[in-house]
Amino acid sequence: MTKTNPGRFFEDYHMGQVICHAVPRTVSGGERALYHALYPVRHALASSDEFARACGLDAAPLDDLIAFHIVFGKTVPDISLNAVANLGYAEGRWLRPVWPGDTIRSESEVIGLKQNSNGKTGVVWVRTRGLNQSGEAVMEYVRWVMVRKRDLDAPAPKTVVPELAEAVDAADLVVPNGLNFSRYDFELAGENHRWGDYEIGEKIDHVDGVTIEESEHMLATRLWQNTAKVHFDATNREDGKRLIYGGHVISMARALSFNGLANAQMMVALNAGAHANPCFSGDTVRAWSEVLDKAETATAGVGAIRLRLVATKGDSSGFGLKGEGGKYVPEVLLDLDYWALMPL
Amino acid sequence: MTKTNPGRFFEDYHMGQVICHAVPRTVSGGERALYHALYPVRHALASSDEFARACGLDAAPLDDLIAFHIVFGKTVPDISLNAVANLGYAEGRWLRPVWPGDTIRSESEVIGLKQNSNGKTGVVWVRTRGLNQSGEAVMEYVRWVMVRKRDLDAPAPKTVVPELAEAVDAADLVVPNGLNFSRYDFELAGENHRWGDYEIGEKIDHVDGVTIEESEHMLATRLWQNTAKVHFDATNREDGKRLIYGGHVISMARALSFNGLANAQMMVALNAGAHANPCFSGDTVRAWSEVLDKAETATAGVGAIRLRLVATKGDSSGFGLKGEGGKYVPEVLLDLDYWALMPL
Amino acid sequence: MTKTNPGRFFEDYHMGQVICHAVPRTVSGGERALYHALYPVRHALASSDEFARACGLDAAPLDDLIAFHIVFGKTVPDISLNAVANLGYAEGRWLRPVWPGDTIRSESEVIGLKQNSNGKTGVVWVRTRGLNQSGEAVMEYVRWVMVRKRDLDAPAPKTVVPELAEAVDAADLVVPNGLNFSRYDFELAGENHRWGDYEIGEKIDHVDGVTIEESEHMLATRLWQNTAKVHFDATNREDGKRLIYGGHVISMARALSFNGLANAQMMVALNAGAHANPCFSGDTVRAWSEVLDKAETATAGVGAIRLRLVATKGDSSGFGLKGEGGKYVPEVLLDLDYWALMPL
Repeated sequence: MTKTNPGRFFEDYHMGQVICHAVPRTVSGGERALYHALYPVRHALASSDEFARACGLDAAPLDDLIAFHIVFGKTVPDISLNAVANLGYAEGRWLRPVWPGDTIRSESEVIGLKQNSNGKTGVVWVRTRGLNQSGEAVMEYVRWVMVRKRDLDAPAPKTVVPELAEAVDAADLVVPNGLNFSRYDFELAGENHRWGDYEIGEKIDHVDGVTIEESEHMLATRLWQNTAKVHFDATNREDGKRLIYGGHVISMARALSFNGLANAQMMVALNAGAHANPCFSGDTVRAWSEVLDKAETATAGVGAIRLRLVATKGDSSGFGLKGEGGKYVPEVLLDLDYWALMPL
Repeated sequence: MTKTNPGRFFEDYHMGQVICHAVPRTVSGGERALYHALYPVRHALASSDEFARACGLDAAPLDDLIAFHIVFGKTVPDISLNAVANLGYAEGRWLRPVWPGDTIRSESEVIGLKQNSNGKTGVVWVRTRGLNQSGEAVMEYVRWVMVRKRDLDAPAPKTVVPELAEAVDAADLVVPNGLNFSRYDFELAGENHRWGDYEIGEKIDHVDGVTIEESEHMLATRLWQNTAKVHFDATNREDGKRLIYGGHVISMARALSFNGLANAQMMVALNAGAHANPCFSGDTVRAWSEVLDKAETATAGVGAIRLRLVATKGDSSGFGLKGEGGKYVPEVLLDLDYWALMPL
Repeated sequence: MTKTNPGRFFEDYHMGQVICHAVPRTVSGGERALYHALYPVRHALASSDEFARACGLDAAPLDDLIAFHIVFGKTVPDISLNAVANLGYAEGRWLRPVWPGDTIRSESEVIGLKQNSNGKTGVVWVRTRGLNQSGEAVMEYVRWVMVRKRDLDAPAPKTVVPELAEAVDAADLVVPNGLNFSRYDFELAGENHRWGDYEIGEKIDHVDGVTIEESEHMLATRLWQNTAKVHFDATNREDGKRLIYGGHVISMARALSFNGLANAQMMVALNAGAHANPCFSGDTVRAWSEVLDKAETATAGVGAIRLRLVATKGDSSGFGLKGEGGKYVPEVLLDLDYWALMPL
């Protein structure tokens, strides 16, 4: 009759189950300041109330990935405490900006289950939604994880593998209410390149590197109330290193991508993502991007650009990704596929 | 005629002396965000304005230990700059929540003095109060420290050893104005265990561990404007490690105790506390709790639970505490005795 | 046709050129909390709204160096990305406090150019201004840096070396609107020494030391959106250390100077500054000050004190500064010359 949370095992999930994740969180300028201290963040729309107002918003929203991390962090005790692997993301969309003062909570619905042939683990697909204090969805995404069974004799559930879009259709991207780039100041934004200046297939080396420290990734991961013990407990491994939360690498790479993509102001969709190799303290993270697609949106002047964002602990100027057999090369940490909004 | 503060020595204290501590501090959401980044904090009442409103409060108060650390930190230059040892706490009570925007200052009254038989040191007891901008007390506690004499020939003061309660009487606990658990959402709080589910004598292993880093404990200790140099100056010791502020261990252990005590939402009394052994960077802190007592409060639906909170750098599942002769085992870092409020 | 910012080279500057620096920034209590966690800051005016109101201000302004760092940080991508050395500061003045909610941006005017005789580098002088959302200047300063040429064949510009004041004239110091020390509470401020208690030539050892950590200086430097890669990328050097942003040492020394200069509440001018030797993680920073000058201001009761602030990684009690030939001794990290306001 232990009182601590052992986490859910594979047999604890069933199709259609809706899990209300614990510990809602009210955010303030404090979360933004910390985010800007943890990552070299510079996209102007999330940095300046004045810049955001000139773009038709009431004030600077919190960085899109703050919303993602908060929504994701709440799911960890229910979804991935006993996860063996975080297998993928799909159909992620930012639906509404998060502002200082908002209170965010998360809920997930089980949309797929498949026991592995070894009988010891299974894959669980969940669609997670983040909601604000008015019950409005701020973001949603599908994630699937491999989870251990507690009882190997528990019967396998009926296999349901959800059909997931390879990428969010550009027509389904949500442009925040009021967003308008007609008075966009490219000088204050930091670069002159607009949507029309990027070509599909173009690759950009973001040049800069940041060496990762234990205390920084732990500060970040705790800030999102993500409690997965592998990130905090050095006694888990002989070398005393802690496995770094994949989201830390996502945020670092996205921030580094400012240099070359300063006008890709808002992330609006998360099409796919793979944490290709683990990241540890001492690694120096660099990033490169590839333009995968472009689309106009229903809002005049607002373009959408689909980007592959790759984080590497090696050289970023060679655009290394996969080796023979399609396997990620060991230096690649992250392969993320997202849509962002940019002035046409 | 040096202008720097040499701190007070034993002969600088006299019975009834009231010391107004320097540097009042206005707090904001920034302090909360940092606190949540430094510790794996998840108690919902201090995390979510919406959850707090459902519990009858105007908004989420700052975490109770933020109030403690700020009040305590201000006393360091006057009370413990020349302290040899921090001997104990008693009769601590949280009297009123601290909200973003509040300005906190501290004052202490000397309530006990006893020169040690060696003639070189003495024990000073002070009752410290934290006050907000309206002059209302937000917390109070008694602390006693061993302090060096500057002048060994200074006459010993009359010995006064204050009579201190072993624990705060449950009848003296202050339930915050308006607190009401009738609409308490256990799912959002993270656990189903209510006051009635805990038994006196019950022990809970909080399972998780966090490895301590130099920069994190320094960030925390500076945030409370605690200036004791042992926490910051690596040249004090041959191994370059810094002695970690005992309050860092208190906050870490309290945050870890969420796992099993998620509904022990507010700390309302600090009955006693011992920093059993020093904590250093690299230690992995775990925690366990023991239910020492239970009581109802004057507020319907609000129960009080008295807990021993033990932080250890060893295994927490064995509930190790003291060895032969009643001495703390070397792994134990903290033995804290407090009252918390919980839904009945 | 690379899209990333290569930075400006010497031949990209011309006299009278005005550069509008990118990424305006809105500040909140979050920046203040982080600043107080990163440095042992205790000056009461920037810590407490109540103390600031008693001094005639509407609320506590952000620490003066937060304004400096934000204004400075924005200039890095345009001024010092290809800098070989940061040569000096002059004629710096704080013109208006920065409050939570303000949005700050920076612009610089080129006021001097001089190609070096080697033909490979040149010195650029810029006057930088920080502006708030109303277009009001919050601070200004002159900085000069040595910058590489991209094209060694580019013609040398006409040499213009600006005449710079050795120190800001006391008559030009700007006392913030409303500042009034008639109800100044020395007990809450932490020390009794007023303007009249300091003598020109007096030296003060600030006693305390803080050992620097990689993650802390990186958090600080990123917080100011300073992107100079030498601060973040450990692969730049064989020992894996990162060169610490000089401003980190300025803030650390200023915070340490509270002990002896607690009433030097506001920095109002930056007369000169030299980063005498590089600072690295593991160095223990100490500070000492020398009173260089004193002056009354146009505001009754508000005195100005001109201070040399020296940061050292050695012993601060010997007041070491320069050795034979007038060269800084290797332990000295910073030699800063500033004016502060203090109760008469």
